[in-house]
Amino acid sequence: MAQQKKMVEDITSMEEDFAKWYTDIVKKAELIEYTSVKGCMVIRPYGYAIWENIQHILDSMFKATGHENVCMPMFIPESLLQKEKDHVEGFAPEVAWVTHGGNEKLEDRLCVRPTSETLFCEHYANIIHSYRDLPKLYNQWVSVVRWEKTTRPFLRSREFLWQEGHTIHATAQEAIEETERMLNVYADFCENALAMPVVKGRKTDSDKFAGAEATYAIEALMHDGKALQAGTSHYFGDGFARAFDIQFTNKENKPQYPHQTSWGVTTRLIGAIIMTHGDDNGLVLPPAVAPIQVVILPIAQHKEGVLEKANALKEQLSGKFRVKLDDSENSAGWKFSEYEMKGVPVRLEIGPKDIENNQCVLVTRHNREKAVVSLDNLEEAIEQKLKEVHDGLYKNALENREKRTYACKTMDEITKALEEKGDGFIKAMWCGDEACEDKVKEVTGVGSRCIPFDQENISDKCVCCGKPAKCMVYWGKAY
Amino acid sequence: MAQQKKMVEDITSMEEDFAKWYTDIVKKAELIEYTSVKGCMVIRPYGYAIWENIQHILDSMFKATGHENVCMPMFIPESLLQKEKDHVEGFAPEVAWVTHGGNEKLEDRLCVRPTSETLFCEHYANIIHSYRDLPKLYNQWVSVVRWEKTTRPFLRSREFLWQEGHTIHATAQEAIEETERMLNVYADFCENALAMPVVKGRKTDSDKFAGAEATYAIEALMHDGKALQAGTSHYFGDGFARAFDIQFTNKENKPQYPHQTSWGVTTRLIGAIIMTHGDDNGLVLPPAVAPIQVVILPIAQHKEGVLEKANALKEQLSGKFRVKLDDSENSAGWKFSEYEMKGVPVRLEIGPKDIENNQCVLVTRHNREKAVVSLDNLEEAIEQKLKEVHDGLYKNALENREKRTYACKTMDEITKALEEKGDGFIKAMWCGDEACEDKVKEVTGVGSRCIPFDQENISDKCVCCGKPAKCMVYWGKAY
Repeated sequence: MAQQKKMVEDITSMEEDFAKWYTDIVKKAELIEYTSVKGCMVIRPYGYAIWENIQHILDSMFKATGHENVCMPMFIPESLLQKEKDHVEGFAPEVAWVTHGGNEKLEDRLCVRPTSETLFCEHYANIIHSYRDLPKLYNQWVSVVRWEKTTRPFLRSREFLWQEGHTIHATAQEAIEETERMLNVYADFCENALAMPVVKGRKTDSDKFAGAEATYAIEALMHDGKALQAGTSHYFGDGFARAFDIQFTNKENKPQYPHQTSWGVTTRLIGAIIMTHGDDNGLVLPPAVAPIQVVILPIAQHKEGVLEKANALKEQLSGKFRVKLDDSENSAGWKFSEYEMKGVPVRLEIGPKDIENNQCVLVTRHNREKAVVSLDNLEEAIEQKLKEVHDGLYKNALENREKRTYACKTMDEITKALEEKGDGFIKAMWCGDEACEDKVKEVTGVGSRCIPFDQENISDKCVCCGKPAKCMVYWGKAY
Repeated sequence: MAQQKKMVEDITSMEEDFAKWYTDIVKKAELIEYTSVKGCMVIRPYGYAIWENIQHILDSMFKATGHENVCMPMFIPESLLQKEKDHVEGFAPEVAWVTHGGNEKLEDRLCVRPTSETLFCEHYANIIHSYRDLPKLYNQWVSVVRWEKTTRPFLRSREFLWQEGHTIHATAQEAIEETERMLNVYADFCENALAMPVVKGRKTDSDKFAGAEATYAIEALMHDGKALQAGTSHYFGDGFARAFDIQFTNKENKPQYPHQTSWGVTTRLIGAIIMTHGDDNGLVLPPAVAPIQVVILPIAQHKEGVLEKANALKEQLSGKFRVKLDDSENSAGWKFSEYEMKGVPVRLEIGPKDIENNQCVLVTRHNREKAVVSLDNLEEAIEQKLKEVHDGLYKNALENREKRTYACKTMDEITKALEEKGDGFIKAMWCGDEACEDKVKEVTGVGSRCIPFDQENISDKCVCCGKPAKCMVYWGKAY
């Protein structure tokens, strides 16, 4: 028996070393494993199941808004990548190049897609001729490669999974509406599925996607006060259409350039979940994407009737929830730690006494609250508990963000707020000048995160130069 | 109006040019579009939706047999690929090599995965230590790259989508059972979802997967009498485990090498669907994977009440079937041709007279049979029609295979059968000698497809050398 006893090792505490706490969780909750390819990782079953749940929900939201899935090649010829000037400048320095197929040297090098605007444009040029061919509302679920120098699991890796939406429209108006619609879809998803509040806004020009006219983003605040860009939605105008010569004839039979968008979220969302909800006992998962929503742990499972009852409950609940029964020989203590580490939202304990009293114990992961509930309306009770977990996570995350959001009128106030209260979002006014944006970063260490749609008037003057302010900006250190 | 009129162009007939018929369908049913990367294609929404349906059904079957999804990197370092000798010899000549990341030359070249045994082995070596860590039943849905010289959409492309299962077990027995189990899953899927009969069998040694001890396959016969390998399942023994030093301690605390399998099906299944069921009017889709199962075509749609009724029927049927209503301005004739081209199993016509009589017309794609059915039990009628389509497709495919399967005792009989009756499966005996296998191919043009599990005794002698036969083999020309 001795050799069968497993131990759940402790993880580094958040306070002690947030970065180490993070990597401890990704390893010990069995989300990823490193490989011999630097910056590329194995997403293990438990981590991949979270991604599958994210995909499932988002894909339904995409389809409900009229989008269709396609699949583009993973390779882009160098000559194709170069067609849009800003785009190639932005991406060429960080792509992986395929130079040989078998033993043969390729004439035109191929890059492994870092993003697929160029491929979609080539395709659109082939299939769009008339206004009747518009709009095309396409999406794909694939992996992309960007040759990053420093990498961290989920947050910044050389290969990562994502979806990329690419749409093309007859008018600028329609394309702008699409860009906003998809940003709202992402925000709804983050708040309602991931229990993660986000700020919606526009990126400053210096932070736009390579080739975009405007980039919108949702920004979330992590537990350590650093910001994480959780999703982006880009409006391209007709720039790509002109570069790739995509034209359609309108109803008056005149040639026109269409307008485009693209938008994406990545496996980085899993990193955001960890750093928004996790604690010193491990992962804490929002119920909507948890691979296991309820883990059933039989207590004194060798006693007559316990395993039978645990199995019956599993049977009963499986149609409605994602349920696991752990009837292994590991100790109850080990199991408690293990499923806390894995962030399972609700633990159901059932032992001989419970059976006698027609009850069980439900423990919610995020606050460890115990409740004794009757087996007569167990499903409603679990439903209620999962809702409590979701709401509790959202409330905690929102409180953390509010506690760590500081309105500042001067550079000194920014420096002081960060020193005294720690990292967080800074709300401060900006004149719109890139020089001021750079200087805020240089002096205080925080960069512009976004110009939020919900504007406030902190002051009439730019936090940096004191000239009249154009808008309020969220500033922060970012992942 | 004139410029709005669309035409469904005719496709080349099967009899005239089967290869051209095939590529006409993939283009005109809007399954794929070519790109500027040779051998790589865009899978368009209609083609990708077929793949999503295939994925959905197969993934459920994998999960029901205890498998979990993971995601491995797309890159394999050259040094890792070289660890298993047979494997690298089989794959190295046809891989794409990444030599540069950004502007930096890589020390160890990376190949884009042609298959992921080496990555799974590296991972298993990291996570498997004790018999309690076994088995691992993993699968992934990804794309892989093989630098083929000649390419054809779906059938042979440089990048293709697939799933690859990789499992690892404590004993040879367990691994062999898994290999067979997954071959059976594939066969069930092909027969019950794709309406495509398959022959299950073992590959001869010359045709085994690089690094395998045994390769099993399912073989289907296309409309033109050529065979198509529709799925494979490999038993590796402990060869990879030894090469990658994967060991576990058994219950007696002794180190042991585990046993492995891998198995896969690809987007080539879409090619198989086309060539098994298609006809001179286009694609014919088995209902289980058809993106649209029922297309509703309003007749005389400008007449009062027709569109309302068509919309009401769409509403009514959408929960149960995948339904599309085409209320565009295109002519009824155009619509008939369009949805025949796209292989929609059932067409529902509803016009003023039908509404008056509380009925509609159902037309099944594969045989163009019309039936007038009451709207009172429409759902049952459609259910029945979809079943008829599935059964009809299966029956036709089986008849084609039986008509084109020839039992032969001598090489002359093979040549004669092929000449007189056209390409097909040859059932003939074999002594087990690779020289005879080569000679059959050289003389008659047909290669060994598989040694079927269902053996028959065509003769006691090898079809080639006349020595005592060991088994019956299916021979044929192959895609």
